Amino acid sequence: MANAIQFYFDFASPYGYMAATQISRLAAKHGRSVEWKPFLLGVVFKVTGGVPLPNAPLKGDYSRRDMARCARLYGVPFKVPSKFPIASQAPARTVYWLEPQGSAIQEAAVLALYRAYMVDDRDISSPEVTADVAGSIGLDRQKVLDVIADPVMKERLKAETETAIQRGVFGSPYMIVDDEPFWGVDRVEHLDKWLATGGW
Amino acid sequence: MANAIQFYFDFASPYGYMAATQISRLAAKHGRSVEWKPFLLGVVFKVTGGVPLPNAPLKGDYSRRDMARCARLYGVPFKVPSKFPIASQAPARTVYWLEPQGSAIQEAAVLALYRAYMVDDRDISSPEVTADVAGSIGLDRQKVLDVIADPVMKERLKAETETAIQRGVFGSPYMIVDDEPFWGVDRVEHLDKWLATGGW
Repeated sequence: MANAIQFYFDFASPYGYMAATQISRLAAKHGRSVEWKPFLLGVVFKVTGGVPLPNAPLKGDYSRRDMARCARLYGVPFKVPSKFPIASQAPARTVYWLEPQGSAIQEAAVLALYRAYMVDDRDISSPEVTADVAGSIGLDRQKVLDVIADPVMKERLKAETETAIQRGVFGSPYMIVDDEPFWGVDRVEHLDKWLATGGW
Repeated sequence: MANAIQFYFDFASPYGYMAATQISRLAAKHGRSVEWKPFLLGVVFKVTGGVPLPNAPLKGDYSRRDMARCARLYGVPFKVPSKFPIASQAPARTVYWLEPQGSAIQEAAVLALYRAYMVDDRDISSPEVTADVAGSIGLDRQKVLDVIADPVMKERLKAETETAIQRGVFGSPYMIVDDEPFWGVDRVEHLDKWLATGGW
C-alpha cells in the first residue's frame, strides 16, 4: 500500500480550500489516499512569528486579489469572507471525529464546511454553524455539537497541531507524501508531477 | 506600444533568479518589454515585518528544499549560496546605471550577476566581485566600481525601493503589467496566461 498524502490545512485558509477541492482527484490518479489533517495556523504562527495573510502589510492586499484570481483560474467558486480569518476549532474537531468513518466522509465534510465559509460567507467558527453544515450532509447535528465541546477532540486537535509543527508545517495548505513536503496551492502541480515521476 | 512588464527583484532572492531566467522570453512572446527593477528587500521588510526566508522558523528549512527542487524542475542551475542572504546594493546600482543602454544589456548583467551568486557562490555584495562579473560581460570594471559608490546611483536605488513599496511590492520576484501584480516565480505561469488571454 503506497503512503497516503497528508493534507494539512486550516479552515480559515482560502488557498487551503482551493487545494482541498483538488487533492482527492490527484491522489486517486496516483493510487494514493488522503489523510485530512486540519490544524490551527494561529498556534503555528506563535512559533514562526507568522501573521494571518489579511493582516500582513502590503501582502494582505495582494493576497485578497490573488486568492480571487486563483479561484477564477481554477474554476472554484470563492468570495473573500466578511469575517476573515476565523478560529477553526469547530470544523477541525469535526473532521477528526469523522476519521474512523473514512476519508470519503471526511472529504465531504471538509468541502461542505469550506464552501459554507468561502462561498456562502457563513461563520463556521461558530459550533452552531458547523453543526448546521454537518447536518446538511447527513451527520447528526447534536452529535457534532457534542464533539466540538468534547475534551478528547480538543486534545486531539492540539496534538495534531503540535505534530504538524514538529513536521515543519508553517502554512496552509501543506502536503506531505513519502516525506516530501509541498506548501501552497501552487505546489499541487509539483506534487502531481512528483508522484507521476517518482521525484526529481 | 504595449506596457512593459516591470520586473521587481532582489539579487539575494533565489526565486527572483529563477524568474529572471524566464521573464524576457515570456515578455517577447507577448510583444512586451521588461523593465528591470532591482530593489532592497531588507528595506521592504522594515515596513512589512517580513523576515529573510533562510532565517524564518520552519519556512527557512522548507524554502531551501523547495528552491533546489524548483530549480531542478525549471532546469536552472542553482546552489544555495554559503552566504545567504546578502545585501544587494552593488549589483542593483549597476543595473540602474545600465538603464540608458537598454534592457538587453541590463538582462545580460542581471543574469551574469545572479549566476555568479546562485551558481558559483560568489559574494556579489562585494563591489569588487560585482565589478569583476560586470567586467566578464564586457563592462568597464573601474566604471562599475565608481557607479556603485556614486551618490546619484545610491539615491536612485533608494527611490526605486520606495516606489516599489508604494506600489505594494513585498517580495521577490514581483511582476507588474497593466497594473496587475504577480508575486513569486510560481506566478510566472499566471502572468503568461494573463497576457495570452487578456486576463480573467
